[in-house]
Amino acid sequence: MTGYRIDALQYCNWSGEILAELRAGGLDAVHVTLAYHEDFRATVSQIVDWTARLRAHAGLIRPARTADDIFAARREGRTAILFGLQTPAPIEAEIGLVEVLHTLGVRIMQITYNSQSLLASGYTEAEDTGLTRMGREVVDEMNRLGMVIDLSHAGARSALAAIEHSSRPVAVTHANPRAWCDTPRNLPDTVLRALGETGGMLGLSLYPHHLAGGSDCTLEDFAAMVARTAEVIGPGRIGIGSDLCRGQPDAVVDWMRKGRWTRGEDMPPGRFPPQPAWFRDARDFAGLGPGLRAAGFSADEVDGILGDNWLRFLDAALRPAGPGAPTDG
Amino acid sequence: MTGYRIDALQYCNWSGEILAELRAGGLDAVHVTLAYHEDFRATVSQIVDWTARLRAHAGLIRPARTADDIFAARREGRTAILFGLQTPAPIEAEIGLVEVLHTLGVRIMQITYNSQSLLASGYTEAEDTGLTRMGREVVDEMNRLGMVIDLSHAGARSALAAIEHSSRPVAVTHANPRAWCDTPRNLPDTVLRALGETGGMLGLSLYPHHLAGGSDCTLEDFAAMVARTAEVIGPGRIGIGSDLCRGQPDAVVDWMRKGRWTRGEDMPPGRFPPQPAWFRDARDFAGLGPGLRAAGFSADEVDGILGDNWLRFLDAALRPAGPGAPTDG
Repeated sequence: MTGYRIDALQYCNWSGEILAELRAGGLDAVHVTLAYHEDFRATVSQIVDWTARLRAHAGLIRPARTADDIFAARREGRTAILFGLQTPAPIEAEIGLVEVLHTLGVRIMQITYNSQSLLASGYTEAEDTGLTRMGREVVDEMNRLGMVIDLSHAGARSALAAIEHSSRPVAVTHANPRAWCDTPRNLPDTVLRALGETGGMLGLSLYPHHLAGGSDCTLEDFAAMVARTAEVIGPGRIGIGSDLCRGQPDAVVDWMRKGRWTRGEDMPPGRFPPQPAWFRDARDFAGLGPGLRAAGFSADEVDGILGDNWLRFLDAALRPAGPGAPTDG
Repeated sequence: MTGYRIDALQYCNWSGEILAELRAGGLDAVHVTLAYHEDFRATVSQIVDWTARLRAHAGLIRPARTADDIFAARREGRTAILFGLQTPAPIEAEIGLVEVLHTLGVRIMQITYNSQSLLASGYTEAEDTGLTRMGREVVDEMNRLGMVIDLSHAGARSALAAIEHSSRPVAVTHANPRAWCDTPRNLPDTVLRALGETGGMLGLSLYPHHLAGGSDCTLEDFAAMVARTAEVIGPGRIGIGSDLCRGQPDAVVDWMRKGRWTRGEDMPPGRFPPQPAWFRDARDFAGLGPGLRAAGFSADEVDGILGDNWLRFLDAALRPAGPGAPTDG
């Protein structure tokens, strides 16, 4: 179990070409987003589409429900696809839908996107509720099933409350430390430390709005940030969650920001910023290694950051907690 | 694999008491109805409720996805619960939902209830379309997945078209021959013969509206009808599908008939008729045996009719057809 390459967040405009880039980049597993604002019914149609995609491109990709599927993907020369939600909107106001979505393959879920959800507050809200009554129960349910709690877009109070309430380590699949790039979407030190102290995982983002210097950020500067982050939470708690949106039209930025909950009249039209020259797409994933080595990481630490840490985390996190789990009644 | 007891259709008002009646009746498996008119979303809530019920009453019942689960239920002293739909409404107009519902445990589906569906015509329509374009594709999809096609409420032309188009044997889970009880809900000879000739199964109904003499039908008369039916399709193609609606309020009859698609102003208020004295509920299931013996069936034939025939049918019918089936991509 070494030398695995895992990207903990992508939302590409999936095609055979873009899926082939995952293979060219040597990725053994990718966590893909099914929903930003979709309700249950619309999310199920996304699952239907992914089921067809997994069949049509079975030479490149395979579904992943457990870490064993990632091991199998490596042996088969395929990329394992983990289903995730960037919002709890698909569970609507019915807690039983967490298990239904788990049965349909969903393994990672954010408890809130940018704004208030039924469970917690996103980072853009002026008031952060922490976990709501339903939020606490859904965290318990995710703990029971073995579904990863993702806090990437949560407000700080909500994130800290989820970390404290969860009986299992949680994840931030795609964000950077605010100390490096001071934008509210990135993580304050309090959340970063709490995540590390509880065995959680941080997937570092390569989305320009999360990078110091934006599209002009250098690999050296990024790698130096990784080294400083490792000093805070240890190199074993760090992975990559690129937030890559390959091939998406700019209209998708508007969809992410506005969904259908706001008229968004005060928001400027969204645009995808250019990726840094050293991470244009998944084919550049392996190139992160030399940058991290140059920043002082050992070869083993680099392997950890590029995938083995996520694999170890997922191997534990995706197991159901005790009896009464998943679909066997 | 002998002496199993299976009821191929019940829609009771499930409680611990009624579930205990399944055990008292010695039933190893029951096919339960999740939906009459419900769309996908509402059907999923029924699955959520069943998931809770299966956990709450795990000493009495267990979920069934394959015949192996029925074998296990027998060993465990529990009743295996097979999920089914009396309507294709839950797949809406999205063929991928057949597989989604299969993943969630649904194993039997009627391609139409009483009236026209997107797939075929129910027996109450003046014009019977046979299989529609979508109907043919859904039959293929059910064949692929190993989901039983149920024609209990289909019009004759639709039923014959489905039997002809299906590459695998189909079922009528709950109906009687029209030659015995002449009501349009029962099966004409053409459908009965086509069902038998293609390896299909007929579950004989104990719902009074399907019985000659209604609530006053005698066990002797019922058993004589079984004997005549066996002369037409053979004793190995016959089982029981009681259509038992134990503990349901009369309002449920209106729901079955009217759903929400009709104002139903010309329909009288629905009422459940009294069950015959010899089949009041599932506890009377074993009592069918002596009646069938008295009508001339051998002990082995009685075992077949009371469950072994359904078990043999389901053991084949619930297997996926070749590669590319269910959820493993």
